[in-house]
Amino acid sequence: MALPPPLPASPDPPRPRRRIPEATVARLPVYLRSLLEVEAEGQTTVSSERLAEMAGVNAAKVRKDLSYLGSYGTRGVGYDVEYLLFQMNRELGLTHDWPVVIVGIGNLGQALANYGGFGDRGFPVAALVDADPQRVGQKVGDIAIQDVDSLPALVRDQGVAIGVIATPATAAQEVADRLVSAGISSILNFAPALVTVPAGVSLRKVDLAVELQILSFYQQRRT
Amino acid sequence: MALPPPLPASPDPPRPRRRIPEATVARLPVYLRSLLEVEAEGQTTVSSERLAEMAGVNAAKVRKDLSYLGSYGTRGVGYDVEYLLFQMNRELGLTHDWPVVIVGIGNLGQALANYGGFGDRGFPVAALVDADPQRVGQKVGDIAIQDVDSLPALVRDQGVAIGVIATPATAAQEVADRLVSAGISSILNFAPALVTVPAGVSLRKVDLAVELQILSFYQQRRT
Repeated sequence: MALPPPLPASPDPPRPRRRIPEATVARLPVYLRSLLEVEAEGQTTVSSERLAEMAGVNAAKVRKDLSYLGSYGTRGVGYDVEYLLFQMNRELGLTHDWPVVIVGIGNLGQALANYGGFGDRGFPVAALVDADPQRVGQKVGDIAIQDVDSLPALVRDQGVAIGVIATPATAAQEVADRLVSAGISSILNFAPALVTVPAGVSLRKVDLAVELQILSFYQQRRT
Repeated sequence: MALPPPLPASPDPPRPRRRIPEATVARLPVYLRSLLEVEAEGQTTVSSERLAEMAGVNAAKVRKDLSYLGSYGTRGVGYDVEYLLFQMNRELGLTHDWPVVIVGIGNLGQALANYGGFGDRGFPVAALVDADPQRVGQKVGDIAIQDVDSLPALVRDQGVAIGVIATPATAAQEVADRLVSAGISSILNFAPALVTVPAGVSLRKVDLAVELQILSFYQQRRT
C-alpha cells in the first residue's frame, strides 16, 4: 500500500485566517494588557499559569486561546513575551492607528473627546460630528465640530474607521444607520438604546447605567 | 396515613431572597430598559417574545430570568408592564438613590463628573476625591474636590455607596483598597488595571480600550 506523497515544504506559509471564537477575541485585549505588565517588569518569558492568574481565567483556557494565534509556548519555559506581544498586536490590528469619529457632542461626547485614552491606545479622535447647527463650528480641544452630513467625506478623506455614538438614546439608531451608509463598519455605542446594524458591521456597546444597576442589585442584597 | 398539616396562610409572606445567577442579574438592566420603552409606547402588557426581541435573547430565557423575580406572566396576555417595572426596580435596588464618589479627577474623572447620566439614573455624584494636593479644593460643576483621606467621612456622613475608580492604572489597586477600608462594597473600575477586592465586595469593570481593540480585531479581518 503506497503512502501518500509528503506535503511540499513551504518556506513561508501564508498565515491562516482561522475563525477565532468571539469569547476568545474578547479575552485577547485582557491578555495584551497582562503581557504589557509582564514586559514592564522586565520578564522575557511568561507561563500560561501567570497569564491565567492575571486575566482571571484558567491556564488551559489561556493555552487554548493563544493556540488560535498559532502560539504554543515551550513546556517548562512558557511563552516568549516579546513575540507574543508582536502576535497579539498584529492579530488585534494594533500595528497601525484606527481613527475615530465621535457623533453627538453633548456632555458625554465632550467627555470622550477629552478623555485622552483613545489616542494613547491607537485610536486617535480624528473628527467630532453633531446634528445641532448651534454646535457645528465650535471646538473641543483642537477639533472643530462638523455637521453630521460630513460623515461620508470624513471616512473618505481622513480614513475614519470607527464611529462612536454618544447621542441620546432616541437618535442612536439613525446615527448608526448614517455611520453604516458612510462606509463605517465598526461602531461603539454609548447611547442607552438597542441599535441594530447589518451583517458585516461590528457593534460594541458600553452602558454605564447597566454597570451601576448591576452594582446596586448586589449592594441592596447585602444591606 | 395522616396527611401533613396544611401550611399556615400567610397574608404577606416575606419575599424570598433567591440566589439569582450572575448572568441573569446582568440581563435585568437590559429588560428594565426595554420595559421603559414599552411603557413609553403606552403599552400596558408585554409578551416574553417582545421583550426577548428587544433584549436580544430568546423568549424562553426571558421567562426563566423573570421567574427569578417571581414574575410568570399570563398565557396569551404576557406580563403587566407596570407591575414588572415595579418588581424590576425593587429587585435592582432602584427605589432609592445610591450616591457615588469618583476617585481620580483627571480627564476621565472630570468627564464622568460632567456626564450627567449617573444622577438621572439614580446614582447621584455625591463627592469627588483626588490624591493630588493641587487638585484638592478645585471645583468640577458644583462639587469641590476633596482629599482621598476624606473617604471614610464621605461614606459615614454622605452615605456614599458606590466608588468609581478613574485614576491611572498604577493607582487603581491602592484606591480600591482605600475604598474598601472606608466601608464601600460596590466599585466600578475605569482604570485599565486588574484590581482585586475581598469577598463580599462587588467590582465591575469598564475598559474603553478593550472595546476598541475588539472592534479593531474585526475591522482588520474585514480589510
